Amino acid sequence: MSNESNQIKIGAYLLERLVQLGSQSVQGVPGDFNMGFLDLIEEHPKLKWIGNSNELNAAYAADGYARVKRTIAAVVTTFGVGELSALNGIAGSFSERLPVIHVVGVPSTGAQGSHSLLHHTLGDGRFSAFENMSKEISADSAILKSKQGAGESIDRILITAMKSARPVYLALPTDLVHATIPAEALKTPLDYSIDDNDAKAEEYVLQVAQKHIADAKSAVILVDACAARHGCIQETHELIEKSGLPVFATPMGKTIVDEDHAQYGGIYVGSLTSEKVKNVVEQADVLITVGSLKSDFNSGNFSYRTPKSSTIELHSDYTTIGYSHYPGIGMKKLLPKLSALLETNGDARREETKKIVPKFENALPHDSSSTITQEWLWPRMGQFFQEQDQVIVETGTSSFGMLEAKLPAKTRWVSQVLWGSIGWSVGATLGVALAARENALGRTHLFVGDGSLQLTVQEIGTMIKHGLCPYLFILNNDGYEIERQIHGPQRSYNDIPPYDHSLLLDFFGNEKFHSDAKSHENDPHQSKKQYYRVQTKQQLDELLKDQSFANPDRIRLIEVVMQRGDAPEALKRQAEATGQANKYE
Amino acid sequence: MSNESNQIKIGAYLLERLVQLGSQSVQGVPGDFNMGFLDLIEEHPKLKWIGNSNELNAAYAADGYARVKRTIAAVVTTFGVGELSALNGIAGSFSERLPVIHVVGVPSTGAQGSHSLLHHTLGDGRFSAFENMSKEISADSAILKSKQGAGESIDRILITAMKSARPVYLALPTDLVHATIPAEALKTPLDYSIDDNDAKAEEYVLQVAQKHIADAKSAVILVDACAARHGCIQETHELIEKSGLPVFATPMGKTIVDEDHAQYGGIYVGSLTSEKVKNVVEQADVLITVGSLKSDFNSGNFSYRTPKSSTIELHSDYTTIGYSHYPGIGMKKLLPKLSALLETNGDARREETKKIVPKFENALPHDSSSTITQEWLWPRMGQFFQEQDQVIVETGTSSFGMLEAKLPAKTRWVSQVLWGSIGWSVGATLGVALAARENALGRTHLFVGDGSLQLTVQEIGTMIKHGLCPYLFILNNDGYEIERQIHGPQRSYNDIPPYDHSLLLDFFGNEKFHSDAKSHENDPHQSKKQYYRVQTKQQLDELLKDQSFANPDRIRLIEVVMQRGDAPEALKRQAEATGQANKYE
Repeated sequence: MSNESNQIKIGAYLLERLVQLGSQSVQGVPGDFNMGFLDLIEEHPKLKWIGNSNELNAAYAADGYARVKRTIAAVVTTFGVGELSALNGIAGSFSERLPVIHVVGVPSTGAQGSHSLLHHTLGDGRFSAFENMSKEISADSAILKSKQGAGESIDRILITAMKSARPVYLALPTDLVHATIPAEALKTPLDYSIDDNDAKAEEYVLQVAQKHIADAKSAVILVDACAARHGCIQETHELIEKSGLPVFATPMGKTIVDEDHAQYGGIYVGSLTSEKVKNVVEQADVLITVGSLKSDFNSGNFSYRTPKSSTIELHSDYTTIGYSHYPGIGMKKLLPKLSALLETNGDARREETKKIVPKFENALPHDSSSTITQEWLWPRMGQFFQEQDQVIVETGTSSFGMLEAKLPAKTRWVSQVLWGSIGWSVGATLGVALAARENALGRTHLFVGDGSLQLTVQEIGTMIKHGLCPYLFILNNDGYEIERQIHGPQRSYNDIPPYDHSLLLDFFGNEKFHSDAKSHENDPHQSKKQYYRVQTKQQLDELLKDQSFANPDRIRLIEVVMQRGDAPEALKRQAEATGQANKYE
Repeated sequence: MSNESNQIKIGAYLLERLVQLGSQSVQGVPGDFNMGFLDLIEEHPKLKWIGNSNELNAAYAADGYARVKRTIAAVVTTFGVGELSALNGIAGSFSERLPVIHVVGVPSTGAQGSHSLLHHTLGDGRFSAFENMSKEISADSAILKSKQGAGESIDRILITAMKSARPVYLALPTDLVHATIPAEALKTPLDYSIDDNDAKAEEYVLQVAQKHIADAKSAVILVDACAARHGCIQETHELIEKSGLPVFATPMGKTIVDEDHAQYGGIYVGSLTSEKVKNVVEQADVLITVGSLKSDFNSGNFSYRTPKSSTIELHSDYTTIGYSHYPGIGMKKLLPKLSALLETNGDARREETKKIVPKFENALPHDSSSTITQEWLWPRMGQFFQEQDQVIVETGTSSFGMLEAKLPAKTRWVSQVLWGSIGWSVGATLGVALAARENALGRTHLFVGDGSLQLTVQEIGTMIKHGLCPYLFILNNDGYEIERQIHGPQRSYNDIPPYDHSLLLDFFGNEKFHSDAKSHENDPHQSKKQYYRVQTKQQLDELLKDQSFANPDRIRLIEVVMQRGDAPEALKRQAEATGQANKYE
């Protein structure tokens, strides 16, 4: 808050900017070099300090928060020991393109200048080692050395984070957090709007694109991650509506287009795609990709059967048509013009689309066994979700399996297909649930295996602390199933210690410490947390049909007992390809 | 294992070298780029794959293992996602000088060369980003690109790790792990012995040192961390025996000299030192420091009152006498010669020492309250330990408090005073307990607060999985007490989610999955794990006197209920100094 003389503390300046960008929660862990900054967060009326169980989980939570909040997320750590623990999570946000600011409380400029042998240092006077490490996974960084220019540096990195959809790094020394700078700049919101394309080049590109499409008998749209990451969801929807073309999504693009849309046909993932989808996509004369991110797991191990000559790729900062590359022509400004061009024959195309686009639905397999199979689980879950729900899937059987489930309109699909760090989903769920609560969205559902859960399990304690009510579906198949599919199915290194999941919620959320626990103690239905264990299709089916279960009034852990060795078909085929690529001979 | 043609797989070559160096356990987490290497570990008759709950915990375990095993520890992770999670732990080993090899399974050389958009990458083709990050915290690294020279590279970094007592980094591509190289070199053990000092320079230094000591009326020896880290424990003991001088230890040097030694007087830590120790150390005419590492927390915030003019500092690669600096004169070779010089008047000095060295003992305070206070707890615990026990203390009330306890002979004190990463001690305990079991040492005891525990709590599951039987003392004082002492005692950011510690062992070690659980189920005393909660001095005292409790036949968790706001005196004073250094004005 600015005072009479229109000065503001540097730390508070940063917080005002975060609030202006729409951030309301700050993740992180206290440490002796950041507590002065935490004071400012705790005192801020519009911000909530989350206080995670460790820094990696905090970074994962920030990643999940940015995905659903669709703005920047902040994570605060302390010099050395704290910040290094967060790096894997920050790198994931870099890889998957999420705007995150990593704020690190560092020793005072005086202590750094004299190279003191402080705790949390490498003991050799190198105070720059940690910022060097973060630079590899940041779009920009600001290492504050004095109050002069501090506000401008903060503004610069925040704009970079928003424009590039990447993490940035801020080193905030203890003696500068409360130093004051002019507050004047805060009156002008940050401008991170996308620049216009060069008009003549853009016009040329549109002509080429139009000719390409006009010459084609059929065209389809494929929506991918960067459509959402680079703020082009609205523009993508407009393209679909106006063009009337069939639309499909990649794994990372799932739910950017509502899956009940009449023109939507399901997921395309190269050779792992279902036959009916593959036919439509691969036989189209033109493929228009929006925000494509062709990583191995997002493309069926690079197995697109779609010729480059007939592909139009729309990216955040370039376009390709066939073999021609147009640098600097970004989709944010190109898309509306392309949509306008395609509007002319839109209705005719829409009619055609209805004939050829496959119906995407949650069809349960005919299977009389009581065992909960991968094949049955995912479409059954698809039937359970409601509009505006959040569905977080861990890399593994969950991320591959849930692809085949049709999700309701406005569902947010949250997965980490490219970075694929096991354990990420548990931390991410905290951030997603916070964002969903702040934005009054629907319920939050996590799907994670018993193996991945173990890496980050304690973050469930933070969820309980903040009274969040996600559904935590733990798929218990006795170890790291995705690893077993790739290599070493009988190896003991893919085994894990057995947890008693029935104790999890009570362990991490000790009722005895809840001040209001007493009033509820005679009414078990008032408990704020509940554990379920399901071993058969019927048990799970009945639970999912239960009206009271559908009401997100408590945190729920549902242990789903599944079979070791069972995996979604797509994972089996991906695992085989990955195993081939990493042959150990 | 070498085959007929005297060739060996590169991965197996590395394992043979680790075995030669005395390593028997390998920490890490499986991932799709390292499983071919894990096959070799699992098949090796002399190595045990530990399989940690996450990579940070694995790195902490390696750190603890190296401390007690006194040789190199290995930790294996996977490219990107795995290795980055381990960095904080590896940086701690760099800071605190422990030899650790971080082996990272990376994509095949072919995939790296073509900059494929693989999962676990940053999505921009930069395959070198992660190795760059690790270089900041490694003494050396080897990024294998072909089988040519692979064995030599492995040898080089292992020798560097052992000589420098620092971590090294090895990138092992999937296509090279099983590629074969000549096994011949394995017949010659690695030579990491310390070079002789320049003879003439050394002779001069000895003359100066002798004159310095001869002129002095009194001299004392101060033993610090690097005496142990650089393999000079034996040489240090010899100096003490032959010289007859009084000896003290810094926090990081505790237990390098047996604390019941007749010449030993306790801990010196600058202004935080007890009066009787301070008097002897600060009034000595000459102070001989062995392996000094003068960090803030190891020196009472740089408050030694010992003039530089009268200090002789013996380091691994240099010596100082007063204001003179002698680069290249290392203590490993200098110490025996210095000891020989001082032997002449040794017996006379020993008699003098007995008169002036304070008695270091576990004196319980006179305090009639039942509350378990910091002041009472540590000396009481000191009475419980036995010879050859391991005592691991988390940075916080435990590391400061336990300093004041006198530990039995041959106890290993394991703390992280310089790096000070909260949560480290839980992972480290796994490594310490493994090393203690392998070397048939005594019991392993962990002291950690309820706050720090939360960062790494799942590693207790790994301890249970391996049948380890440490004593886990959880000091429950309702949050981050060390942080509260430094800043924000009433701030909510120093609060934590309340755990129900009574459920911890059963949650992480589900008995139902133990094949032998059935046979024990009617006999609670046969259970492999046990929880205790003590709230009064009397309860803890009785427990510690119980003969059956003293027998390490199961894993034990002892929740010690303490008061928020209570802290060891040394911590209070250190926290005040740290708070001053980081003032937020």
